[in-house]
Amino acid sequence: MLGAMADTLTRQGGEKEFRRGDKTLEFMQMLKDGWRTKDSLVCVGLDTDIGKIPLHLRKLEHPLFQFNRAVVDATADLACAYKPQIAYYSAVGAEHDLELTIEYIHQNYPSIPVILDAKRGDIGATAEKYAEEAFDRYRADAVTVNPYMGGDTLKPYLARKDKGVIILCRTSNAGARDFQDVTADGRKLYQIVAGKAVNSWNDNGNALLVVGATFPEELKEIRAIAPEMPFLVPGIGAQGGDVKAAVTNGKTKSGAGMIINSSRAIIYASADEDFAEAARRAAASLRDEINRYRS
Amino acid sequence: MLGAMADTLTRQGGEKEFRRGDKTLEFMQMLKDGWRTKDSLVCVGLDTDIGKIPLHLRKLEHPLFQFNRAVVDATADLACAYKPQIAYYSAVGAEHDLELTIEYIHQNYPSIPVILDAKRGDIGATAEKYAEEAFDRYRADAVTVNPYMGGDTLKPYLARKDKGVIILCRTSNAGARDFQDVTADGRKLYQIVAGKAVNSWNDNGNALLVVGATFPEELKEIRAIAPEMPFLVPGIGAQGGDVKAAVTNGKTKSGAGMIINSSRAIIYASADEDFAEAARRAAASLRDEINRYRS
Repeated sequence: MLGAMADTLTRQGGEKEFRRGDKTLEFMQMLKDGWRTKDSLVCVGLDTDIGKIPLHLRKLEHPLFQFNRAVVDATADLACAYKPQIAYYSAVGAEHDLELTIEYIHQNYPSIPVILDAKRGDIGATAEKYAEEAFDRYRADAVTVNPYMGGDTLKPYLARKDKGVIILCRTSNAGARDFQDVTADGRKLYQIVAGKAVNSWNDNGNALLVVGATFPEELKEIRAIAPEMPFLVPGIGAQGGDVKAAVTNGKTKSGAGMIINSSRAIIYASADEDFAEAARRAAASLRDEINRYRS
Repeated sequence: MLGAMADTLTRQGGEKEFRRGDKTLEFMQMLKDGWRTKDSLVCVGLDTDIGKIPLHLRKLEHPLFQFNRAVVDATADLACAYKPQIAYYSAVGAEHDLELTIEYIHQNYPSIPVILDAKRGDIGATAEKYAEEAFDRYRADAVTVNPYMGGDTLKPYLARKDKGVIILCRTSNAGARDFQDVTADGRKLYQIVAGKAVNSWNDNGNALLVVGATFPEELKEIRAIAPEMPFLVPGIGAQGGDVKAAVTNGKTKSGAGMIINSSRAIIYASADEDFAEAARRAAASLRDEINRYRS
């Protein structure tokens, strides 16, 4: 309902500060509204690397923000979410570019949720600070977190009912199997994590899982454990994940339930001045390819 | 040898910019030199919370740095390392306070290593950025990392031979058992992680493990797996870990091998203007208590 309200406000073109302002928009509702109204499961990953953006932008003030703004403007009607990866900003002291990016999306596209990809994980007192970082300082709508330290370390994030908490389950890299596949009494660690997410951590209905597109069999198993939980799915594009296998195995009964992220294949589709148009074409093409396998 | 050189330079009182400058000081050597020359295993945790520092500092410019500087000056001869926890800075946009703190330690106490407690973990391309954040941007000597995503995600840190890479193994919180104790073929996940650290990840001799003081039996088991590897040991003090049990079970044959962290019990020993003197007393008392059980 809150997501629908934001859409209405956008369509009315109300005052910018009123559109999002201090209103609490629920991440889960925004996500579901976006899937439906845009008919898109595509998440655009803003892994914006100062060494990879077009040369003409690097001389500007806040170059990462300038790049992101152009990509966002070109893809807003195609994206169900944006996902900036914080390391690309913090490595070069560009926290303010990240703040500007998220604020720009909130002001101009208030119905699109922003996922801060930070994969945080620490004990309670520190986790409170990381939750503040993601939700209060950056005003993200969701954050990615690492479960290794246990369920108690996830509580400070999960307690924020309006925010999404996206828990690493089975990741998209080759080394994922080192520990995530450790098997106890016939259950793999990632299956145990998925079970906890469904049965212990989802009292507020705001838990999600990260499941890589590069392991479609695992996507299927985890979908069986968590039939309705949304998955953030990295690994499409540069990492080699197959769209058909990922969508077929990862979708919910209604043909949604996935936030399918692509970063490099969208934002670096062109290294020239036409990068934003090229990003739009890549995002549209991915949306269409995904939609072929949803029903 | 490099650590010893830094000590020499400090004693000579050479030009500040020359003392550390661009010299590469090896984390492991600095650590071992510090244990020996100071006879201390105490690490002071700079979990500096703007809501907890004395009121008179909160009005100053860079209040977190001002607080840290006073604590560092009061404890430098007692600390084998400093460990700022990054969430306390990033939650409030105080990255520059963190930069100033690390730079201050490098300039004034060049033989003391700085551990950036960030518990990062992500796939290779992003891990490269996190390594840049810790080692190039902040110029930390070591960083804490999370192994959940697998061995390949740790390589970008481990490749930095002069830097310490401190891998979460068995953490100090109650929920640690949720996943770290998952048992496959008689081996717990934390034992598998410790085995990998010793046998697969330590080609450069720069891997360490995080093992909480709150689980002394696990400390003993992990010491058996990794007889010479240094451990970062949180959980003493505010978290309730017993010093005697931790040191007895965690020390190496030579009576060292541990970086025993205390944050709140040292830096908030007093909430008043005497906070630095109180921090010194708390650090000295902890050092002495630890040393009682080392030989």
